[in-house]
Amino acid sequence: MGGFFTGRTLAGIGRDLRSGEESATGLLARALESVDADLNAFVTLDPEGAGAAARKADEELASRVDRGPLHGVPVAVKDIIDVAGLPTGMGSAHFDGHVAGADAACVTMLREAGAVIVGKTGTHEFAYGGSGDVSVNGPVRNPHDRERMSGGSSSGSAVAVAAGTVPLALGTDTGGSVRIPAAFCGIAGFKPPYGAIPTGGVFPLSASFDHVGVLAGSADDCRIAYRALTGPAEAVPPPVDGSAPHRRVAWIEPPALDSPALDSRALDSPVIDPEVERAVRALFPDAKSERIDLPEILRIFRVIQDAEAYDVHAERVAEAPGRYQAPTLERLERAGRTPGWRYLRAVRERERFAREVAALLDRYDYLALPTLPITAPKIGETEGPFGPYVPALVSLTCPWNVVGLPALSVPAGTVHGLPVGAQLVTRRGSEPLLFEAAERLRRDGAG
Amino acid sequence: MGGFFTGRTLAGIGRDLRSGEESATGLLARALESVDADLNAFVTLDPEGAGAAARKADEELASRVDRGPLHGVPVAVKDIIDVAGLPTGMGSAHFDGHVAGADAACVTMLREAGAVIVGKTGTHEFAYGGSGDVSVNGPVRNPHDRERMSGGSSSGSAVAVAAGTVPLALGTDTGGSVRIPAAFCGIAGFKPPYGAIPTGGVFPLSASFDHVGVLAGSADDCRIAYRALTGPAEAVPPPVDGSAPHRRVAWIEPPALDSPALDSRALDSPVIDPEVERAVRALFPDAKSERIDLPEILRIFRVIQDAEAYDVHAERVAEAPGRYQAPTLERLERAGRTPGWRYLRAVRERERFAREVAALLDRYDYLALPTLPITAPKIGETEGPFGPYVPALVSLTCPWNVVGLPALSVPAGTVHGLPVGAQLVTRRGSEPLLFEAAERLRRDGAG
Repeated sequence: MGGFFTGRTLAGIGRDLRSGEESATGLLARALESVDADLNAFVTLDPEGAGAAARKADEELASRVDRGPLHGVPVAVKDIIDVAGLPTGMGSAHFDGHVAGADAACVTMLREAGAVIVGKTGTHEFAYGGSGDVSVNGPVRNPHDRERMSGGSSSGSAVAVAAGTVPLALGTDTGGSVRIPAAFCGIAGFKPPYGAIPTGGVFPLSASFDHVGVLAGSADDCRIAYRALTGPAEAVPPPVDGSAPHRRVAWIEPPALDSPALDSRALDSPVIDPEVERAVRALFPDAKSERIDLPEILRIFRVIQDAEAYDVHAERVAEAPGRYQAPTLERLERAGRTPGWRYLRAVRERERFAREVAALLDRYDYLALPTLPITAPKIGETEGPFGPYVPALVSLTCPWNVVGLPALSVPAGTVHGLPVGAQLVTRRGSEPLLFEAAERLRRDGAG
Repeated sequence: MGGFFTGRTLAGIGRDLRSGEESATGLLARALESVDADLNAFVTLDPEGAGAAARKADEELASRVDRGPLHGVPVAVKDIIDVAGLPTGMGSAHFDGHVAGADAACVTMLREAGAVIVGKTGTHEFAYGGSGDVSVNGPVRNPHDRERMSGGSSSGSAVAVAAGTVPLALGTDTGGSVRIPAAFCGIAGFKPPYGAIPTGGVFPLSASFDHVGVLAGSADDCRIAYRALTGPAEAVPPPVDGSAPHRRVAWIEPPALDSPALDSRALDSPVIDPEVERAVRALFPDAKSERIDLPEILRIFRVIQDAEAYDVHAERVAEAPGRYQAPTLERLERAGRTPGWRYLRAVRERERFAREVAALLDRYDYLALPTLPITAPKIGETEGPFGPYVPALVSLTCPWNVVGLPALSVPAGTVHGLPVGAQLVTRRGSEPLLFEAAERLRRDGAG
């Protein structure tokens, strides 16, 4: 399944570009050649626009204008993010033929960093789902097993990177939509703290939780891309207990079949595949187990997300319901019935949960847990032995959208022959610590 | 219908107390004697507690401790406001036997100002209605016609003042609940700007809109009481066009039967009795007519109030629905179905309306409109020739809760032999201007 960029790092690509061994136009040609149409990662390719950007990148480098680590690098962009002059399709028949008039803010940042935008990648319809198989463009396939889900909603961005077509892609993450497909596809995905990358020009799903994030082959490339977009890093913070370089890590226990938190909610509350838990837990032998009421946070997440999502879609649902994919319409109709008083309570409960997590992060440098409780299901399936998939897919990622904290998913080996991800979470401003931890995991052979 | 305090002003009472012509204990005795049980204004009288407070007030005055214009004055307090040691019944069987452990913040302010709290006054159940005839304590009767509504929800506070039992009462106003019964009963009612009097210890209805306000025989007594509670007044602001003492006044046109704003909403949108409009409009001959989409603001108000009210009541509705009065339960059940997305939109639309009103108040010193579109209906009736009463009662008052601006209702003569009120609204901090305008109306003979 390796494409041209498989195993290549941004640092290596940058060296080759600057030594003259590669050119941006050459890299773009490799990217375009590596597109595997059967995976369905791309919905739009832009060889002309990208060609012009690549030629400009080469000219700049030739005249010693160096825009940094993304200069000349082919990048893919999720199809809910506006790229001027290209269609933004949202994975939906509703936006058939819609062409963006201007670049999203994050695309402007990409261009200013010298990146070459290769095309637009498939998304779960309106980014409203974590499976990546509900879209007018058809399912995005997992390169590790083409009968399985890529995960979503930044499906195509994850697959474009995992298949080696590009070394970097932009995605969005409202409940896990960068980290979920990254984990299912065996790559790294980083959701920065809320607001760190602006969402202007990105189609909204749930404004309280929407984040723009990056997907790459490794955590280190996520770090490089994040910094290229947002500016110099904060210093790596000292450990909470003062005895560097030792880090205190909390293992957030995912709800298991015997979890007390599930008492009366078991039917709608996903639980973890014990083999996934074992594989990821083994990477953090020194972590101390801590409990958070994850099913309750999932409930808070869904109430707020649903009310906000229906606010975005109400007129479309009323006027052209038939243009949605059936599962999206079903979700929206349910979302539209979310009572206002439950939204109000969820907003208050969110504040309480944020204080609880803040208190935990006063005692630990970072939190660790699996990115997903399961490995990638078959395309089209909706339920498995550990619960229904819609809630399962976001059950371990959405808490960090609810509190807006930086969260990184890194490859953590395989289970049932499929990739699994480890998720690291820390305080806002302590992002460098996540990349430091990911580097340790990599050295220990997790990826 | 005159009681002891009918026609007596706080200034006059204060002079009599300080000249020795009256004592606080004597005034309390007059108040207690004037209670007209048939009107049902009081749900609790506290002769002992009030007696102790009156004796203390007399002793203080005798030893030259003077707490200002409310010193020794008998005051009534709405029964959703906690007075330590007295029942707070909320007009509901749900709080049968409930005794407050501490004073509400506004009651502490009353006591510090030397007021004598005579008792607790009847409220529309949980303050969730403007008619004043839905309560476990039975309807509060209008002293101008005992078969008619007092208006609500601060029903008993208005009637206690209108019947001359006390010169001053505290009420609360979420959509008009101070101004509505003041207008129906022919007295003055003042809703200060949002937050000016703290709501701690007041049972919530809709936290975004809840205000504590004052009811008295005249606007000037509202002014005196408001200042006694909250501190010295701002200076009277200069007129917007600079040519003092001329004031620029906008007449906010209430929706009439032929109002274009009613197009598709006529069925649920109250309109004004043309005789009420004529009577109040005549008081502002120099006002320029302006239009605001009042039916739309009523809709915004109801969406936000309903979601917030159900948040307060959800457990009671689930566990003991039968303890509510039937109309309250019906309102709550509907309120519970208010969709979250509509709440979100209403919050945004509220901001837009606030900007619209602010722009109007850049051009005018104050806004004028009737307090109510109708005169007091018969107790128990729910609909009249100008629309259903539930929305009608708050249709002209709730906009000023939505934007949190100071609003004063003053007596404006009679229509069909019943009192009507004129409502004055201005910028936050320009309250003195409302009292100045009310004084002009009084001199011109409106009251």
